[in-house]
Order: sequence, then structure tokens, then C-alpha cells
Amino acid sequence: MDSRELHDDAIVIDGLVIAKWDRDLFEDMRKGGITTANCTVSVWEGFQNTVNNIVEMNNLIEANSDIVTKVHSTHDIRRAKREGKTGVMMGFQNANAYEDQLGYVQVFKDLGVGVVQMCYNTQNLVGTGCYERDGGLSGFGHEIVAEMNRVGVMCDLSHVGAKTSEEVILASKKPVCYSHCLPSGLKDHPRNKSDQELKFIADHGGFVGVTMFAPFLKNGIHSTVEDYVEAIAYIFNLVGEDQIGIGTDFTQGHGQPFFEWLTHDKGYARRLTNFGEIINPEGIRTLGEFPNLTDALLRHGFTETQVRKIMGENWLRVLGDVWGE
Amino acid sequence: MDSRELHDDAIVIDGLVIAKWDRDLFEDMRKGGITTANCTVSVWEGFQNTVNNIVEMNNLIEANSDIVTKVHSTHDIRRAKREGKTGVMMGFQNANAYEDQLGYVQVFKDLGVGVVQMCYNTQNLVGTGCYERDGGLSGFGHEIVAEMNRVGVMCDLSHVGAKTSEEVILASKKPVCYSHCLPSGLKDHPRNKSDQELKFIADHGGFVGVTMFAPFLKNGIHSTVEDYVEAIAYIFNLVGEDQIGIGTDFTQGHGQPFFEWLTHDKGYARRLTNFGEIINPEGIRTLGEFPNLTDALLRHGFTETQVRKIMGENWLRVLGDVWGE
Repeated sequence: MDSRELHDDAIVIDGLVIAKWDRDLFEDMRKGGITTANCTVSVWEGFQNTVNNIVEMNNLIEANSDIVTKVHSTHDIRRAKREGKTGVMMGFQNANAYEDQLGYVQVFKDLGVGVVQMCYNTQNLVGTGCYERDGGLSGFGHEIVAEMNRVGVMCDLSHVGAKTSEEVILASKKPVCYSHCLPSGLKDHPRNKSDQELKFIADHGGFVGVTMFAPFLKNGIHSTVEDYVEAIAYIFNLVGEDQIGIGTDFTQGHGQPFFEWLTHDKGYARRLTNFGEIINPEGIRTLGEFPNLTDALLRHGFTETQVRKIMGENWLRVLGDVWGE
Repeated sequence: MDSRELHDDAIVIDGLVIAKWDRDLFEDMRKGGITTANCTVSVWEGFQNTVNNIVEMNNLIEANSDIVTKVHSTHDIRRAKREGKTGVMMGFQNANAYEDQLGYVQVFKDLGVGVVQMCYNTQNLVGTGCYERDGGLSGFGHEIVAEMNRVGVMCDLSHVGAKTSEEVILASKKPVCYSHCLPSGLKDHPRNKSDQELKFIADHGGFVGVTMFAPFLKNGIHSTVEDYVEAIAYIFNLVGEDQIGIGTDFTQGHGQPFFEWLTHDKGYARRLTNFGEIINPEGIRTLGEFPNLTDALLRHGFTETQVRKIMGENWLRVLGDVWGE
């Protein structure tokens, strides 16, 4: 089976996409052979604006039902594969949308939100993000983790501070993830995770999705798909072949105003970081180029079984573990 | 001048009342000769429910304008004294009502909110309360303090954690307060402040209002107004005669459901504490008995000038310093 055949046959799951949602994007996902993606529908928004984002996504899915379908369970992911569509699983990059209501965990789960990052860059009611001093998981945060466990929502720690992350890993009774991260062993950055952190999450049954966000890669905006594979291999060597997957962090379709919103606290307050120019690695500049990643993984020397796991089977298994279906 | 004449002549300010707001309460405030009180209109509520509380308070003030008047400035406090009314200054016990919007500081100031406690017992976007591990003032918290300074809203730290409190004291360019606290030198309790903390706020130009909330007093529900004066004298000896005032924490008119709401995180989540039975100190069981406090202070040996300062003149000065009018 050549790399393209393998890609077309595999379950391909992208653990984090924060793109501009429209038909063009969905068509490019189809071109890229993506079975399912964790699609961000909340970052700084509160409860009601997040519901509004979900309504907008529901309408988009409905209007493009020839190529996309909504995902509530791993059955839906397998169905998407069978039907040749891309499954949209909705996710938050910030527990802020839960506001102060434990009951909103179930409400959003019913609406299709199965993966939620505990904090985005700064402090919220649950804990603290990775761009400021981190006081750890709050008492309310412990209650939120327990409720996410009960309801079946995966805790994501990508943008979460080190102390809060460690305490979520210890508090959660179900696997948690860094859905989209890179190793600080290749480049030191507040968003990247140390060898120790990567081993810690894996040792506790957790999961690591590897991103290709250029500012966090060793070669920055001059990176290629080979640099991405190097980072995948680095993490693979730390966490093993069953707890690793893809989480690209594609921002496809967005312009500078969106990045300004992302990089200011609450979307408008103080500046937290400045990405500079963002150019995705050569060879995987768009979602449509996803098959090049399968090819590069094979060329790197991963076996067909390992490539299938990395490209989606591992995500499928761990999501089933957390969701229970 | 006997104690009753002094009380009637003095500016009497209560730095914290969280009573059930109705005409009976306002009549008892008049009976107690209270010039102005900081009246809590938000604890766990978010933005909109807090606005609704303010609307309700506005309506109450309007309906009882023969005995109460709204306070936006120290001019209003002096006017209330002249007119023989009780001034209602609105305050929050939690910056939660600001949600994630720096601009809400000005909005609520315009509505009459001049004193805001940074946190109530637990973590919010600004910092952490005194009933859980405290990670300190967040980056957004620093922005909120700066905005409260700019707009003229006093930072209250009574229910705030030790670390967040210290950092607010250092960050604020205007005097901050514990509006209602007791010394842990007389009784060890998470809500009480150490000698070191009381000196620290005073050394940095801050202010201490002394509460009589029975569960935090040495003799608990068996306390008398003399125990209250003992606590005032204890703090007086630490902070001096110009930075001390009254902040009773009267909960007059509320029943058990209200205390259940107060003592659970967000008003409904995990239990944070249990006050047990609440009986105010004998001699000052109701707001109407306020004149007994002036009498007890005089009997304790405070001079007339000191009593005037403690009963209200110090609050008046420091509020003027923060509000700028």
C-alpha cells in the first residue's frame, strides 16, 4: 500500500483546528482526507456567545451536509469515514464558556462539545493558563474536572499552566490530553512542554497531540513537514506509539484581527504574546495537504501500523475511553 | 456632650452591611443614626443579575426617599447627614460582576458602586479568596486594580486570600481596605487578619473596618458589644487612630437559605464553611442599636475625637481620597 492509499484508508483525526469555518474550509478538509477534526467553537467567549457560535456551526454543518457531519461519539467518527465525510467534533479552548455553572458541562456535551481545554493562556475560575504565574487547579476546577469525567468530556491542557496541568492530570479519573503541543526539548517556549511533562501525562494514561504551529517549531516559519515529523518522532520516543496523535492547530482562513484577538487577554485586554508572521510548514500549508504528512511519516521510517495510530487510531481509542461510546 | 448627643452629631458610616433591603431595614438604620452604609448588591452574581439587583435597590431608594438617599460621593454623605437620611453607597463583595470586562468598572461606578471586594472566598478572574489556596493577583487582576484606581473604586480585601491581598495592597496607587475584618490575634480563623497583615495594609496607607460578625469573635455567639470594642481597640493599637473604622457585616433580615447561598462556592457548588448559629453581640443585635457602640467606645476610654474618627470620619476621609470627590 503506497502512502496515498494508506492515507485514504486510514482514520485521520486532527485533534485541534481553529480555522475560519466555511465551505471552502470543509472542502479542503475533504481534499486532505480528514475523517474528523476537533473544531474550536470557544476561546474567550462566555456562555451565550459560545452557544451562538455553536448555532452558527450547526447551520454550517446542515448547509454542507454533503461533505461534513456532526460528531457526538466515536460511532459518528466511524460513520463519517464510511460516508466519506469529515466529522466535526466541537471543542473549547477555554472552560470560560462554562462560566460558574457545573451544569453547563452537560449542556454543552449535549450540544456536541466533547473536548474542553481548562484554561486559555490566563487565569479563569478553573485554573491558570501558560502565559502567567500559575496558582494551580482551583476548588471549583476540581469540581469541573469531576463533572467532565462524569459527563464524558476530555480535559485538554495545551494552553494550561504547568501546575494546573499537573493537578488536572492527577485529579482526572479519565485520560486527559495536550491536544496540540510541541516539545521544549526542540525549542524553548512557554507553550511547549518539557520531556518531564510529556512523560508525566503519558505515565498517567494521558495523550499527546502534536502541533505544527510554526512559531513553536525549531525552524519557525522556515519549517517543512520534515520538521513536523521530527517533533512527532521526538514525542513518540517519550510517550510511546499508543498515546500520540495529530493536533495541527490550523488557523486556515483567519487574518491578523483574529490573531490580535487570540493574543490579548479576554480578546481585548493586555497583550500576552506576539506570534509574528505565521507560515505553516512547507508541505502542509493547508488542510488539503494532509496526505503529505502520512507520506513523510512513512519516509521517516514509521511502520504502517504506527502511522495509522499516529494519524487517527490512537485519538479514536482515547476519545472512546473518555466519551464511553 | 453625652454619648447619645455625640452619636447624633457624628458622621456614622458602616463600611459593610449585607442585610435584607426593605423599608423596615432602612427605618432601623435611621433609628441607629447611620449616616451612610456600604450596602452589598453583588456576591456571586454575574453582570446582568447584579444590574438587576441595582435596579431593585434604586427602586427601593426611590420608594423610601423620605429616609434614604443614594451616595455617589462624599458630598452625598454630608448631604445625607444634613438631611437626616441614611445614604446608600452600593458595593460588591466580589469582582465577579465585572466578569471579563475592564469597562464594567466605569459602568458600575456610574451606577453608584464605589467599593468592590476583589474576591469572595474563592478564585475568580482577579485573584483568590480566603477559603482556598491563593495563587495571588492575576494579570487581569492587575488591570482591574489599575482601572479601579483610575475610575475611583475602592479595593476591598476582607474575604480575599493573603497573597492576593498583599499584591493588591502593593499594586494599588490609592488606599485599599479590609472593610470588615477581625484580628486573628484574638481568634484564629481563615477570615481574620494577622497582626502582620493589619500593619502591612496600614503601613501602605490602607484602611481597616472592624466587623462584629459573631463566628469570628473570641466569644462567638456569646459576645457583647464590649467584645466588639475589644477587637476595635486591638486593631486601633496596631493601625493607629486614623485608619480604622466600622464595618459591621450586619445580615439583618436574612434567614438560613441566604447563609447557605453565601457559604457555597458560586452560591450552589461545594460548601466552603459553616457559620453555625449567628447571634450578633448583645447590645448591638440590630442596626437600630448602633448608638450603644458609641457609648461603649467612650466607656472604653476613647476620646470624643477618636470616637468620631472610628465611627465615620476616617471612612469619610479615605473614601474621599479614593473617589476624588
